Amino acid sequence: MPENPAVPLRAVCLLSGGLDSSTCLALAIRQGYECYALSIDYGQKNRVELESAARVAASLGAARHLVIAVDLRMLGQSALTSEIEVPKGRSSAEIGQGIPVTYVPARNTIFLSLALAWAEALGAADIFIGVNALDYSGYPDCRPEFIEAFERMANLGTRAGVEGPARIRIRTPLIDLTKAGIVSLAHELGLDCRLTHSCYDPGPDGRPCGECDACQLRSKGFKEAGLVDPLVS
Amino acid sequence: MPENPAVPLRAVCLLSGGLDSSTCLALAIRQGYECYALSIDYGQKNRVELESAARVAASLGAARHLVIAVDLRMLGQSALTSEIEVPKGRSSAEIGQGIPVTYVPARNTIFLSLALAWAEALGAADIFIGVNALDYSGYPDCRPEFIEAFERMANLGTRAGVEGPARIRIRTPLIDLTKAGIVSLAHELGLDCRLTHSCYDPGPDGRPCGECDACQLRSKGFKEAGLVDPLVS
Repeated sequence: MPENPAVPLRAVCLLSGGLDSSTCLALAIRQGYECYALSIDYGQKNRVELESAARVAASLGAARHLVIAVDLRMLGQSALTSEIEVPKGRSSAEIGQGIPVTYVPARNTIFLSLALAWAEALGAADIFIGVNALDYSGYPDCRPEFIEAFERMANLGTRAGVEGPARIRIRTPLIDLTKAGIVSLAHELGLDCRLTHSCYDPGPDGRPCGECDACQLRSKGFKEAGLVDPLVS
Repeated sequence: MPENPAVPLRAVCLLSGGLDSSTCLALAIRQGYECYALSIDYGQKNRVELESAARVAASLGAARHLVIAVDLRMLGQSALTSEIEVPKGRSSAEIGQGIPVTYVPARNTIFLSLALAWAEALGAADIFIGVNALDYSGYPDCRPEFIEAFERMANLGTRAGVEGPARIRIRTPLIDLTKAGIVSLAHELGLDCRLTHSCYDPGPDGRPCGECDACQLRSKGFKEAGLVDPLVS
């Protein structure tokens, strides 16, 4: 992490506008990076996401917020992009066991690839992604072994990786935190959690459903952190 | 490779419409795969590419040809997508030495990631890409070490990689061939090379410039294979 450098190091931060990616961006900014926030319009049903991302990026003072479109509905189905229903009311034992229908094929691989291109163009060696492999939905592309393999590949497949000046690093500061730990960190960083969203299937007014895996994980996180979620209070 | 299976195995084949990717698709079809050709509209100046790809896919009998758009001009600059001029008249000693301005940041990483998503949705374990690391432009994302690292990452970051039924394989049948070897293979497979293109900077009528790295490599390949390029004859 840069220590008050005269010229701040640049970082690309993937930002969905969810609690995790927003906390991750807040942390990168706190660590002194000049942050370039990247959101992907991939055909998600939940259009609130992109509005949340814009609000969070502005609120935290990202150097830039870019939304790039790639319609992943053309390539495969997921409950997040198609008519498949988002599961509701799963128990905490069920959440994280197996890969649920909300999985989007190769999503984080695609998102990190786009972040990698932008990082290379910006001269940024660091790419932040708010993945978490503890209180999570069981997606394979949130696990540390995937992130390590992506980083290795990124350094072999780019000019930046081959010629430098610095090795590309995929930064995952939340990967070992519980959801309660993420909520506490967000609180400590002063992130306004009202600006974030987490729900996989919000109502027409943007209100979280309260019953999908993401709502349940968020609710449990706030409860265990001893904090009130301003989004649902 | 499938040996006349009752149900042919599916493969996703990245297809730019260039000589290499077209030969690669022809080979995959000859090997018995049911091929899903994928082209990317990434903002390339050379719009002839996408027309070539459509013609080649139809001519070879791909099961489907999909064009997906993602505007890489938003993420960085390259002579293939911006006002930067395509270098002309470089010597064969210069071509392949260092990474030229035609390099597009993380292009093959992004293309393979999109192919990976489609492969997963189609239940295809094989992804063909016509990269070549011998008579090539010096791009880091054409080298075998990058491809191996991508394959490893792909099997860690997807449902298909984790749950099977088959390990994802990135197939690069041209990677060790000279350009003359690729031309000979294309000829042997009956590929109509008039349908393909290679030029980085064609004229307004679509005619190849004859002087960019890609034109020179193609010309050298046909010459060394003892064949006439129908595109320029």
